[in-house]
Amino acid sequence: MAPIPGRLTGLGVGPGDPELLTLKALRLLRAASVVAYPAPEHGVSFARSIVSNWLEAGQREIAIRIPMQPGPPPDAIYDTAAADLAAELDRGNDVVLLCQGDPLFYGSFSYLFARLAGRYRIEIVPGVPSITACAAAASTPLVTRDEVLAVIPATLGEAEIARHLSESDAAAIVKLGRHFPKVRRALRELGLLDSARYIERATLPNQRVSPLPCVDAAEIPYFSMALIRRRPIGS
Amino acid sequence: MAPIPGRLTGLGVGPGDPELLTLKALRLLRAASVVAYPAPEHGVSFARSIVSNWLEAGQREIAIRIPMQPGPPPDAIYDTAAADLAAELDRGNDVVLLCQGDPLFYGSFSYLFARLAGRYRIEIVPGVPSITACAAAASTPLVTRDEVLAVIPATLGEAEIARHLSESDAAAIVKLGRHFPKVRRALRELGLLDSARYIERATLPNQRVSPLPCVDAAEIPYFSMALIRRRPIGS
Repeated sequence: MAPIPGRLTGLGVGPGDPELLTLKALRLLRAASVVAYPAPEHGVSFARSIVSNWLEAGQREIAIRIPMQPGPPPDAIYDTAAADLAAELDRGNDVVLLCQGDPLFYGSFSYLFARLAGRYRIEIVPGVPSITACAAAASTPLVTRDEVLAVIPATLGEAEIARHLSESDAAAIVKLGRHFPKVRRALRELGLLDSARYIERATLPNQRVSPLPCVDAAEIPYFSMALIRRRPIGS
Repeated sequence: MAPIPGRLTGLGVGPGDPELLTLKALRLLRAASVVAYPAPEHGVSFARSIVSNWLEAGQREIAIRIPMQPGPPPDAIYDTAAADLAAELDRGNDVVLLCQGDPLFYGSFSYLFARLAGRYRIEIVPGVPSITACAAAASTPLVTRDEVLAVIPATLGEAEIARHLSESDAAAIVKLGRHFPKVRRALRELGLLDSARYIERATLPNQRVSPLPCVDAAEIPYFSMALIRRRPIGS
């Protein structure tokens, strides 16, 4: 007789500081028989590194290898990963899928969710996302009162970034990396350069916070963000 | 000789489920000699209720009473609260200020921060904000790939809400409450009503998730949100 299928849990593990895991995420992580996580084609998984001190000896691990390349990864990557997770679930094993930040705020969980929802029980545990971690690191309110916040991927075109910036009271521009020069041009064009803050590797030991104009475009990692506010803090 | 001033910590305690506190928030909460929190003019503080099981007997509590009324509370409320916190800090006491969700994502912490920054050491511990908690409750991606997310307060005018909705790929409309009929009209006008999800009291035992068209406008609490996506999940 086939076993009762296991449950898949999308587990937000927060922005990087292991102490920013939630109590719920830690409990479910420790109870899981299978721990899956996204990883680059070669090298270590950032999501796994966040929780590495809490992994138990008996847990089986599944690294979902996602090639780092411009543009979204091909569908086949997620089709294969979904099949691997489904095989574990069909054996009756509960699987937690580690998600840096929050599972539903960018990131790859949504693609696996789309492939497995309806067929399996899926729980999602929200986590501290990068935007609130970066705001805390920069001591800058993200939004107050009746302000509108726009979260803008730096992968968009310069005109589109500028349009969204001009239409919102506050903005977080995510995934800066090699798109930094374009973002800086858009901010300068709109007169927002001097109010922009730059944050990289928020909550990690090598976190960096700086006025955006002081940043060297040649040294921008993927995990970096610009925060912009039109109004002064607290007004 | 005056003591060394204490440290103020803005402590994100998450959306409501006590298990969605971070490990860091729990550690700092337990170590604090003074615990402050926003509260309505009469009745219990939501932020305090989230952590009530972890409060220690010897901790002094400061309720910052904020009258519930349309529009922002008067400046005098925050001036007085800032003075009360400053008096504790001047005595050398460390103070944690509980913030439901995240300290810098709406909420009252920003006003106290603006009044006390520069004079005292202030640390901010990010928390799980309502938007990621609601997305998890509704099993709906907030944003994927190169999508732009707009976070829109329902307190804005209908035309402004509609404009921001039409300019973004995905949106969270926060602080619904009595503004619900206006938001529903804006969504209907844009043809977005059928794709809108309604979530109230996310992560609490009385959480409710529903297609937005099924909701009775007479029963909308302040802690409710609409999530809208233009593209199908996973695309």
